[in-house]
Amino acid sequence: MAKELKNLTKRSENYSQWYNELVVKADLAEQSAVRGCMVIKPYGYAIWEKMQRTLDEMFKKTGVQNAYFPLLIPKSFLCREAEHVEGFAKECAVVTHYRLKNDPDGNGVVVDPEARLEEELIVRPTSETIIWGTFKNWIHSYRDLPLLVNQWANVMRWEMRTRMFLRTAEFLWQEGHTAHATAEEAEARTVQMINLYADFAREQMALPVVVGVKSETERFAGALNTYTIEAMMQDGKALQSGTSHFLGQNFAKAFDVTFINKENQAEYVWASSWGVSTRLMGALIMAHSDDNGLVLPPRLAPIQVVIVPIYKNDEQLKAISDKIRPIINELEGKGISVKYDDADNRRPGFKFADYELKGVPVRLAVGARDLENGTIELMRRDTLEKETMPIEGIADHIESLLNDIQANIYKKALGRMNENIHEVNSYDEFKEKIENGGFMLCHWDGTPETEARIKEETKATIRCIPLDREDEEGVCMVTGKPSKRRVIIARSY
Amino acid sequence: MAKELKNLTKRSENYSQWYNELVVKADLAEQSAVRGCMVIKPYGYAIWEKMQRTLDEMFKKTGVQNAYFPLLIPKSFLCREAEHVEGFAKECAVVTHYRLKNDPDGNGVVVDPEARLEEELIVRPTSETIIWGTFKNWIHSYRDLPLLVNQWANVMRWEMRTRMFLRTAEFLWQEGHTAHATAEEAEARTVQMINLYADFAREQMALPVVVGVKSETERFAGALNTYTIEAMMQDGKALQSGTSHFLGQNFAKAFDVTFINKENQAEYVWASSWGVSTRLMGALIMAHSDDNGLVLPPRLAPIQVVIVPIYKNDEQLKAISDKIRPIINELEGKGISVKYDDADNRRPGFKFADYELKGVPVRLAVGARDLENGTIELMRRDTLEKETMPIEGIADHIESLLNDIQANIYKKALGRMNENIHEVNSYDEFKEKIENGGFMLCHWDGTPETEARIKEETKATIRCIPLDREDEEGVCMVTGKPSKRRVIIARSY
Repeated sequence: MAKELKNLTKRSENYSQWYNELVVKADLAEQSAVRGCMVIKPYGYAIWEKMQRTLDEMFKKTGVQNAYFPLLIPKSFLCREAEHVEGFAKECAVVTHYRLKNDPDGNGVVVDPEARLEEELIVRPTSETIIWGTFKNWIHSYRDLPLLVNQWANVMRWEMRTRMFLRTAEFLWQEGHTAHATAEEAEARTVQMINLYADFAREQMALPVVVGVKSETERFAGALNTYTIEAMMQDGKALQSGTSHFLGQNFAKAFDVTFINKENQAEYVWASSWGVSTRLMGALIMAHSDDNGLVLPPRLAPIQVVIVPIYKNDEQLKAISDKIRPIINELEGKGISVKYDDADNRRPGFKFADYELKGVPVRLAVGARDLENGTIELMRRDTLEKETMPIEGIADHIESLLNDIQANIYKKALGRMNENIHEVNSYDEFKEKIENGGFMLCHWDGTPETEARIKEETKATIRCIPLDREDEEGVCMVTGKPSKRRVIIARSY
Repeated sequence: MAKELKNLTKRSENYSQWYNELVVKADLAEQSAVRGCMVIKPYGYAIWEKMQRTLDEMFKKTGVQNAYFPLLIPKSFLCREAEHVEGFAKECAVVTHYRLKNDPDGNGVVVDPEARLEEELIVRPTSETIIWGTFKNWIHSYRDLPLLVNQWANVMRWEMRTRMFLRTAEFLWQEGHTAHATAEEAEARTVQMINLYADFAREQMALPVVVGVKSETERFAGALNTYTIEAMMQDGKALQSGTSHFLGQNFAKAFDVTFINKENQAEYVWASSWGVSTRLMGALIMAHSDDNGLVLPPRLAPIQVVIVPIYKNDEQLKAISDKIRPIINELEGKGISVKYDDADNRRPGFKFADYELKGVPVRLAVGARDLENGTIELMRRDTLEKETMPIEGIADHIESLLNDIQANIYKKALGRMNENIHEVNSYDEFKEKIENGGFMLCHWDGTPETEARIKEETKATIRCIPLDREDEEGVCMVTGKPSKRRVIIARSY
């Protein structure tokens, strides 16, 4: 393993390969036997669980309740909303039969042709259709609104080119679906949730993001408006990390969901939907990690502190363990997760490299001499700085250090992002700068044609119209036509 | 709703219909548009989440880690273990295509015949095969063992007759999969987990269970031994509520998973798997509820205490709310979940009936006269007893009352179970008694033939060979052949 670690490709050599190797070497995930589907390993899943728990609490505080809807969607449901099916039809896993049988020719087990479904079922790529089909039974009067529902689920989109966490045929996510009496309320919820995602990214993942609105071309299939958080990876590419959609009355009309308003009249219901997925794992890994492995923000690290005793014999180990035990208790009392690794089948140097690879934020090492001196060696993963410190008061020090590390990782990522956002005023300048990555703030004439041309010629797409920028008169960098504000254009994952 | 409540079928009239109605009327779940699949509604899902959280903590305390494996299993994987595929082939949802397209004849969207998968994929009915296919990469040496993995997931078994929670085509569950160096260790884990399930059922669900071993016929497909917890419903039928399987080396052999032991020799790995599902929701509902609706044990109730103010005007409501606010804070400070229902669009009587239907363990009602007298009306759901009490010290009283209710619900269910376990010594007696439900303790000659005959003639099956009973010499009630211990035979869900 120590050898394998040394073999981790450097980011500067091949960023993409560095990522693929890191996912596997840090024990986060691996390819499965099923095309485009990954296995999320325990260490990776523990990070996802921490994300889930925090997001779930944040959702519930805003009044959202969890529920569960079927995995399989009748084909006719998917087809009810025209743009929606257009957007997903090309990547649907389709269940056509419900039974296997022994091959009459003796070639093992085959699909039983007699068990063909009357109507094909689609493994959900997203659940708007089955959920709005259900909401029809739940919504009758304005008193039933707003309806705020979320589900944690697996979904499937048959992508041709897959990469672990970033784009997989099956992925885990949450999808929120809300129903409202007015357009204003539905759009306010849409914005509330994209801001919740931005807060989560910044505060928990230490991930700076730009909040914005998608262009029409990049909208969710069936939405009137899609909000997004866009993060910048270390290679300057954008990663769409969460989206929130204002669906208008499209799904209410498709599934005939009306409510009786206070004036006793029937109206179609207004909707939002919003989701983040295991793709966030990809963002987390790519945004902070270095050539030694993962760098995890303490709030999402399954192990926040690892303690490695350095000993020559059982007597030394016992003396160290006796000294360390109360420190572990003190740390755990503060809600800090600690691993004491006294395994005797791996050398300390090997352990150090392994915990660096796994991104444990703080590493302590204690040897016999430390015991004599009342000291301990502390290393912080984000800066790789080592320090020998008094063992007295170490738990308090670590508590505040973890906050420092969290803040420092965010600051570093924010600095990197801000350095790589450029205002660009000509298409030539754009073409030159885009080669080095980064977010380009450009004037665009607002047409899908210009958008398509930029994409074709530079492989860059309009990531979003950022919400936090003032309007600014200008001219489109490609066509010279008037533009009222700058948009962010970048290459992306 | 109050009217609907009155319409709840009585258990004595039609137990089965009572259950089906209760699931819907208490807002736990409903049928979906997809055959045999249900929608778990927010109130039902909140109960499931409480179960999940507690079970998850219990698993982790025994060293188990969560992970996630693909939803879809290649057909060839399913077929590697002969008994396993035999057991599941007849109820498999099969994915055969990965794309839809516009119908060239203009009839909407159809499956694209050109997007046929080379190998069909099965929606997992359980994950032994895909997991053991993965374990092959994870296990090399005895140092990699034991491997203790669990996943929370959806699974699919295409059942012909479905009932919400009890038997649905898709259900939610956890499946634990462990790998060990020795048969003894794997079997010890199998037993540890069935006992964990029994503890969970008794302590959290207030559900008494019999722990036992399945007969060969009733074993999990691919197991050497299946342990079960069997609960008794109010109609005397058994409900298999959780199982734990000793898999021997069957899956290790099927997927060629070996490890190098301490003597440096390659050996096949030993395995267990174990699971509980949303079926537990069915057990919970059926075991405790009454003709007024759900009865929930406090530890799993999403709302433990509901407070209903009874007022004629805003002034009264304000006075009541001012009095109640500190009580709510005190209860919440004790970790008790409270709902204060001051909605003005439903009358108190309606609210009372609704919270009874939903099984909220404790209901408080406060009116103007109570304020004057310093009293509060308290009703406990399990006994429906009402009492007027001093408002002073009510939070402490409720804290201990919730424990009493939890204990009382268990005691009641345990009493009912014990009353309906009968030692039966002749087949005639058996046939007569089984008509009234209950668990029959019978001698059985241990043959599948006798087992099949009992099932055919009485619709009863061998639920388990209970672990906590002494061996006892006897003769089979059907054939008169010798028997060494009694087994439990019952009709079941």
